[in-house]
Amino acid sequence: MRMSEGVEWALHTCLNLTWLPGDQAVPTAKLAAFYALPAAYLNKQMQALARAGIVSSTPGPRGGFRLARSPEQITVLDIVVAIEGPDEAFRCVQLLKQGPGADPAVDYRQACLISQAMHRADMAWRRELAAQTLAGLKADVEQQYPAAPGNTSSALRA
Amino acid sequence: MRMSEGVEWALHTCLNLTWLPGDQAVPTAKLAAFYALPAAYLNKQMQALARAGIVSSTPGPRGGFRLARSPEQITVLDIVVAIEGPDEAFRCVQLLKQGPGADPAVDYRQACLISQAMHRADMAWRRELAAQTLAGLKADVEQQYPAAPGNTSSALRA
Repeated sequence: MRMSEGVEWALHTCLNLTWLPGDQAVPTAKLAAFYALPAAYLNKQMQALARAGIVSSTPGPRGGFRLARSPEQITVLDIVVAIEGPDEAFRCVQLLKQGPGADPAVDYRQACLISQAMHRADMAWRRELAAQTLAGLKADVEQQYPAAPGNTSSALRA
Repeated sequence: MRMSEGVEWALHTCLNLTWLPGDQAVPTAKLAAFYALPAAYLNKQMQALARAGIVSSTPGPRGGFRLARSPEQITVLDIVVAIEGPDEAFRCVQLLKQGPGADPAVDYRQACLISQAMHRADMAWRRELAAQTLAGLKADVEQQYPAAPGNTSSALRA
């Protein structure tokens, strides 16, 4: 089980956008060049973030992407779900329906205790990701790596 | 991101084995028939569980699989890791190494705050799965579905 690398790209790119003035849109080519990423593939991730309302896209020669809401209102979970989709990693196929004594009227995604156990773990994972905002990451980076914000905004404005 | 269906098969099969006497080995064909699963593919999962020390395999005409240790000593996490492997779903490729101001001597899997955030969520998921043993699942099933243990052991002994 492996998360797509687009999640890492999207998290870093959204964090980088927190260090630009809110009215400044950055073209995908510049966002991609920052980490030497393939622009076409990063653009797919940016479109997914736009569909999720995390970034907004401005067309035209001075266009590009910027955050669509404040970093306090964007969680790590929002970004992960925008790229990976909302489904849980464990998708119960209701194996119990094929077993002896199965009740065809029962939804075993709800009734099965194994399914419930896997769901509880997924919820713990989501709670942890939802507790972390871009604003929190931004503040932590600024404290631990004081040069990062300046380096980032000059590279993306250049 | 989707977990292999082998995880669901392995969890149900291990739970079913808790309802058999500890000295009774069940052949893969019978374990597979219980849920109408393809025996060859279930056998691959059983071999992975055997390599992880969760089940033991007895060869020969009366052979098969049984739990290798008591249900108190087998967690849901043990079974998930046996099938999916030990790696975290988010695998940091150290994107920061490709960014401006990168320090080639730094291991960004450790230093990157995004990597740390993803790691904390993975740990929360693992803690939850590690807190749930086969013994706990067995007890919960016995309380909520009192017919299940009897149905299971008769079907697997038949």
